[in-house]
Amino acid sequence: MGDVRCGNLFGMADTESSLVNRRIVLTERPNGLVGDYCLKTVEGPIPEAGEGEAIVRMAYLSVDPTNRVWMREEDSYMPAVPIGDVVRAAGLGVVVDTRCELYAIGDLVLGLLGWQDYAVIDAGEHAANVIPPGLPATDVLSIFGSTGLTAWFGVHDVAKLEAGETFVISGAAGGVGSVAGQLARIAGARVIGIAGTDEKCRWVVEDLGFDACINYKTENVEERVSALCPDGVDVYFDNVGGEILDAVLANLAIGARVAVCGAISHYTAESLPPVFNTFELVNKRARMEGFLLLDYLDRFIEAIGALLPLVLDGSLVYAVEVVEGLENAPATLNRLFTGEHTGKLLVKVSDAAD
Amino acid sequence: MGDVRCGNLFGMADTESSLVNRRIVLTERPNGLVGDYCLKTVEGPIPEAGEGEAIVRMAYLSVDPTNRVWMREEDSYMPAVPIGDVVRAAGLGVVVDTRCELYAIGDLVLGLLGWQDYAVIDAGEHAANVIPPGLPATDVLSIFGSTGLTAWFGVHDVAKLEAGETFVISGAAGGVGSVAGQLARIAGARVIGIAGTDEKCRWVVEDLGFDACINYKTENVEERVSALCPDGVDVYFDNVGGEILDAVLANLAIGARVAVCGAISHYTAESLPPVFNTFELVNKRARMEGFLLLDYLDRFIEAIGALLPLVLDGSLVYAVEVVEGLENAPATLNRLFTGEHTGKLLVKVSDAAD
Repeated sequence: MGDVRCGNLFGMADTESSLVNRRIVLTERPNGLVGDYCLKTVEGPIPEAGEGEAIVRMAYLSVDPTNRVWMREEDSYMPAVPIGDVVRAAGLGVVVDTRCELYAIGDLVLGLLGWQDYAVIDAGEHAANVIPPGLPATDVLSIFGSTGLTAWFGVHDVAKLEAGETFVISGAAGGVGSVAGQLARIAGARVIGIAGTDEKCRWVVEDLGFDACINYKTENVEERVSALCPDGVDVYFDNVGGEILDAVLANLAIGARVAVCGAISHYTAESLPPVFNTFELVNKRARMEGFLLLDYLDRFIEAIGALLPLVLDGSLVYAVEVVEGLENAPATLNRLFTGEHTGKLLVKVSDAAD
Repeated sequence: MGDVRCGNLFGMADTESSLVNRRIVLTERPNGLVGDYCLKTVEGPIPEAGEGEAIVRMAYLSVDPTNRVWMREEDSYMPAVPIGDVVRAAGLGVVVDTRCELYAIGDLVLGLLGWQDYAVIDAGEHAANVIPPGLPATDVLSIFGSTGLTAWFGVHDVAKLEAGETFVISGAAGGVGSVAGQLARIAGARVIGIAGTDEKCRWVVEDLGFDACINYKTENVEERVSALCPDGVDVYFDNVGGEILDAVLANLAIGARVAVCGAISHYTAESLPPVFNTFELVNKRARMEGFLLLDYLDRFIEAIGALLPLVLDGSLVYAVEVVEGLENAPATLNRLFTGEHTGKLLVKVSDAAD
């Protein structure tokens, strides 16, 4: 599948919108999928840089499950997005105006730039990272960005996967999952994916080299994990939470590690899904640990250095789907929760970084 | 409270039963508390030692929540007790006959001796540990046995508690909980207990030096933990699971550790209680880890060596309640689940070790 590029090919919004700044703001707390009932597009002038500020022309938005978490009423590891604020999301853009010595015009920057055409950054709370030139923008937001780095630290730092172990991963065909499963394979583990369509299962097995993949929509996950992992699951990389987490907890090996990366089944749910098998952590002397990429900022270079040769020699492949047009950000985010995606999803806001 | 001794003072069963071997066997899987409907006392001759075997006269039985876990249909970290078998429980006794070179007559031995007057041990599957002379039998089954050692490894090895941290413990007045909370206090932590009566709360605060204690039957645990731990819970030592686990998960500090020792709310429940707040492990980059004392066999001496001076100088106090009579084992086990106990419960089967 490699580098998939499709989406709204007719979206001419970029050109049309370049004279105004569109901002997609949250008007109320969403219930389930997002849509017009909770979002509003506000048009205004392109912002000007105040003293100590710079203006970024958005190029690509990263579409991540956590965007939806931040819209909830409750604070998570970050405060909830206030009603009336632009939707929070990571993105990549180019500095087009600056009155801040950290940023020069033309710099490629990565930060929580939000669902808008232009973002204001500064040296403080709204700082962004200047990206060294040379890497394709879509790679910075995927394999060398949150997706690849989350996969790397989850597999190696949190789960401490060892060769010969059995590794199970949910959300197997997603941005993080598809990379994490391959990293596990490269580390010498037996890799079992869990995904939501036969096509996704086929992709991770045939193209990405997983040993097997369970379609959770048509198969009994607990029974299939048990059958595929007769000696138990040494590492479970959890992207979904809920029932699938329970099914894997019922099949842990002694000394198992559950690296909790996400809980996509929770984010759009009205109430949190229950988990029943936590006592298996005692029966199996197992560990369940949550992690956030944010905590690894000072080790990004280490992970990028490890990923780069794997990408260059072709042992690690990754899929990026680029959807054109800021206006498609809400629908693209929803696809994370309806399972209608493979690999990493990006929204292209402009060609400023191409 | 210190060393409480009460129970069935009129139980003369020991003398009466010394010519027969009473065995309390499981006749069906219990539902909730145990009783005559699932247990039967079978009388028979005192067993004789076959080649490679020894006979142990039971002295004290350890009454532990896990006894009830082993009666369930499902295997846990050990196989379920088969229907018709004697109830599995740790106990201490004295070797009265031997044809096994590991055991000499008069040896004090500790092992899974079961709810019976006499147990058969060997050098293999039914081995027991010979206890060096000098320690009181009740101490071997409490502070220097499963209770104290579980508390020690849970606090120091699993939770890795550090001075200045906030430590919360459920089952605070129980055998493990009352010791673990004191070990946390001695390690320099702020200690908040959770227990089921005002009397238990008073005991752990006034006599054991906890900083506070929440009565989960009369107070809102989530609100009280939040109020008492404004900077979050660094370590939660979980003995109960279920709702209380959820309430503490909602109040974790960043980097928190949840040491899962037991889940007493689960063992007599018809179905497993749900846990909803597992995603807090991600929000707080926290770790939840189950452990079993069994895995620390080779480090018992280290822990006993650490506990001994604390007991001798009086900084660590512990309560042991001895109930007389094997026939009272079922009712005594039930008290763990109805909360009618403080400290460690033992059943005295005979005075062989006094």
